[in-house]
Amino acid sequence: MKASNNSDQPKQKLVVVGGGFGGIELIKRLRNSDFEITLVDKHNYHTFQPLLYQVASGGLSADSIGYPFRLIFRNQKNFRFRMAEVQKVDSSKKQLETSTGIIPYDHLVLATGSTSNYFGNTEVERYGRPLKSIPEALNLRSEILQELEKATLTAKHSDQKQHMTFVIVGGGPTGVETAGALAEFKKFVLPHDYPELDPKLMRVYLVEAGPRLLNGMSEKSGNNAVKYLQNLGVEVLLNVAVLKYDGHKVVFSDQSELESTTLVWSAGVKGFIVSGLPEESVKGNRYVVDEFNRVAGTDAIYSIGDSAGMVTTEKPRGFPMVAPVAVQQGTNLAKNLLRLKDEKAWKPFQYKDKGSMATVGRNKAVVDMPNFSFGGFFAWLVWMFLHLMLLAGFRNRVIVFVDWMWSYLTYERALRLIVRRAETPK
Amino acid sequence: MKASNNSDQPKQKLVVVGGGFGGIELIKRLRNSDFEITLVDKHNYHTFQPLLYQVASGGLSADSIGYPFRLIFRNQKNFRFRMAEVQKVDSSKKQLETSTGIIPYDHLVLATGSTSNYFGNTEVERYGRPLKSIPEALNLRSEILQELEKATLTAKHSDQKQHMTFVIVGGGPTGVETAGALAEFKKFVLPHDYPELDPKLMRVYLVEAGPRLLNGMSEKSGNNAVKYLQNLGVEVLLNVAVLKYDGHKVVFSDQSELESTTLVWSAGVKGFIVSGLPEESVKGNRYVVDEFNRVAGTDAIYSIGDSAGMVTTEKPRGFPMVAPVAVQQGTNLAKNLLRLKDEKAWKPFQYKDKGSMATVGRNKAVVDMPNFSFGGFFAWLVWMFLHLMLLAGFRNRVIVFVDWMWSYLTYERALRLIVRRAETPK
Repeated sequence: MKASNNSDQPKQKLVVVGGGFGGIELIKRLRNSDFEITLVDKHNYHTFQPLLYQVASGGLSADSIGYPFRLIFRNQKNFRFRMAEVQKVDSSKKQLETSTGIIPYDHLVLATGSTSNYFGNTEVERYGRPLKSIPEALNLRSEILQELEKATLTAKHSDQKQHMTFVIVGGGPTGVETAGALAEFKKFVLPHDYPELDPKLMRVYLVEAGPRLLNGMSEKSGNNAVKYLQNLGVEVLLNVAVLKYDGHKVVFSDQSELESTTLVWSAGVKGFIVSGLPEESVKGNRYVVDEFNRVAGTDAIYSIGDSAGMVTTEKPRGFPMVAPVAVQQGTNLAKNLLRLKDEKAWKPFQYKDKGSMATVGRNKAVVDMPNFSFGGFFAWLVWMFLHLMLLAGFRNRVIVFVDWMWSYLTYERALRLIVRRAETPK
Repeated sequence: MKASNNSDQPKQKLVVVGGGFGGIELIKRLRNSDFEITLVDKHNYHTFQPLLYQVASGGLSADSIGYPFRLIFRNQKNFRFRMAEVQKVDSSKKQLETSTGIIPYDHLVLATGSTSNYFGNTEVERYGRPLKSIPEALNLRSEILQELEKATLTAKHSDQKQHMTFVIVGGGPTGVETAGALAEFKKFVLPHDYPELDPKLMRVYLVEAGPRLLNGMSEKSGNNAVKYLQNLGVEVLLNVAVLKYDGHKVVFSDQSELESTTLVWSAGVKGFIVSGLPEESVKGNRYVVDEFNRVAGTDAIYSIGDSAGMVTTEKPRGFPMVAPVAVQQGTNLAKNLLRLKDEKAWKPFQYKDKGSMATVGRNKAVVDMPNFSFGGFFAWLVWMFLHLMLLAGFRNRVIVFVDWMWSYLTYERALRLIVRRAETPK
């Protein structure tokens, strides 16, 4: 492959949009490069998305799973941060239009991640609660607690039930983990802290349109997850989709209905696409990228992670939208960008599947390794250890560890401040 | 004193408005009483106000200094919680009108605390930032960090300076502690994490209308605070009041001006007064209470803490609005309420001044004991230990301790997520 034009002076401007797992990894790998790197993100912090559900369910503080970009890269001399929302890519002028002005680039990496996909259901989009960012997790936490407070205001069981029914849509890891955490709240917190409410009135439903949970994992793990959730008291509904939701009543595809004031939407994500690229660059809500993560129809624009739709013979439908893919694409693209200088040939992306995992409740998890699967308490220990190691920042690891030990020993969820009133109309 | 009518059945309804230090203490003391207690608060958590400035300055998480009422009182059988804003007291019907309905009472304790006092300056009220609650502390944190991000968007020093100038108004403990924390941010965080900004452009002003800082403490402590703050680089302005502030420019009483986009208002508080009581019940923004904390002109209505204006020969201008007064009044009122049952005589409130303290930066504090004052590193250790012990909840103590040790060793302020965009128009 021919490297693009590359001079010593002035330095090449590399702009990375999005500081998720992929963007962070790429920037770290270019620490000693000649690029002048600018990270553009609408938040000033990296979000450890796998633990968002614990923020929502009162087990962890938002500060423990978010880490400021400026702190992550404080010793990286070629790094600059720009807090901005990208409005448009102008590839002819090689610049980004953002909420805080124009940013020129020589190379552009779109690591824009994914956003909730409501599949066109505007009603669910309006009344459902997403769980993709820290503000959304804090909103959901406040929402759940406010609904329980509302339940205490009435003595009518039918009204109480509506406020105490939580419908989680989507049987992926986020849905499974959120359902497990809410079921534990019902089991361990509600009977003590809400003496005026009958715990039996609280119901947690996990609804999945497909025939099984954890579709990206092994069948064994999917079945284990169902078993663990049911043991915790979660009602798992398979082969059922949500048709309508008006903030009070859910209507399902089998015409059954549930009264519920809280619907958590974790049923789908789509790549977050920046406007301005030619039509051929985008397909099925993801950027069309080749095996080098170059975006089709563009020059010096790349995409990695959830937003990148790379189709290979191995993965004809693209790679799953998970952190390891983003990290590995970030690594590979960084290495290729380093090859520009010496005009070396680029190497194509190759995915090493190291396995996947999901946790259910306080001491169960399911883990798929490339060759075998296991579940239960040991899987939960593995899950805990790996997530602690993956967290950014020593302080966050210590605090999360203390919070987990404390929750484990006391069965408590203490982080229950309602600091963000529900913004969605009801 | 004659106790009010007191029967065994039905139980007497005691309603406490406000779960600050006084309200909490009173309820705890009535744990084994025959009262049916209802705590009414607009938040679902108790706020440890002395550490709000650390939330604002990125040293502590909001979850560490707020503690859910339901958790505090989970084992207290005669306790109920009601999240509501009180709109009016109807003393003729013996009921409260709240945002979530009517609450009847037999005895009513107004522990409504205090709110920021802008002394009628609506402009400062609109553009200034208060620091009296957790949402306000989180807003201020986001505001400070957003202003620094804005400073990075321009190369003009005069514009940068405006975004990097922080004016803290009010030389009480909150003002002193906030100024110290911001000065440390300038010293230890800014040079590392904002390489594009010249740290010298960041200025922290502490402005006090009176002739000295920490007016409620000894002169020695006030002078020590000035010394410690100046050593940290804070510019302390005494005998200067704020006349005008439009969100960009502060005009002082000596006609001097400062360009600043962030003005923190900690210059005054006033009792938070619920409407509906007769005119004679309120004077100078506090309830008029006798030495038993009974509100003048009412029956079975009491007030404790910041909202209670108790005038004694010892304190002809009322007691200071500080936590120890609230706690001791809560204790005394609880004991008196217990005396109702046996128709015993009530005992008047007597204040035991155990001293006061304020901290300046990472390793200095000033402490006033009844008979002597001291300052410096040992005072800071005393400050730390006492605040850890006073925090609600074992989990919060451990987490705050870890965060303090971590900050002390690393000089870092890591809790810097901008999760609440500035709501005030600018």
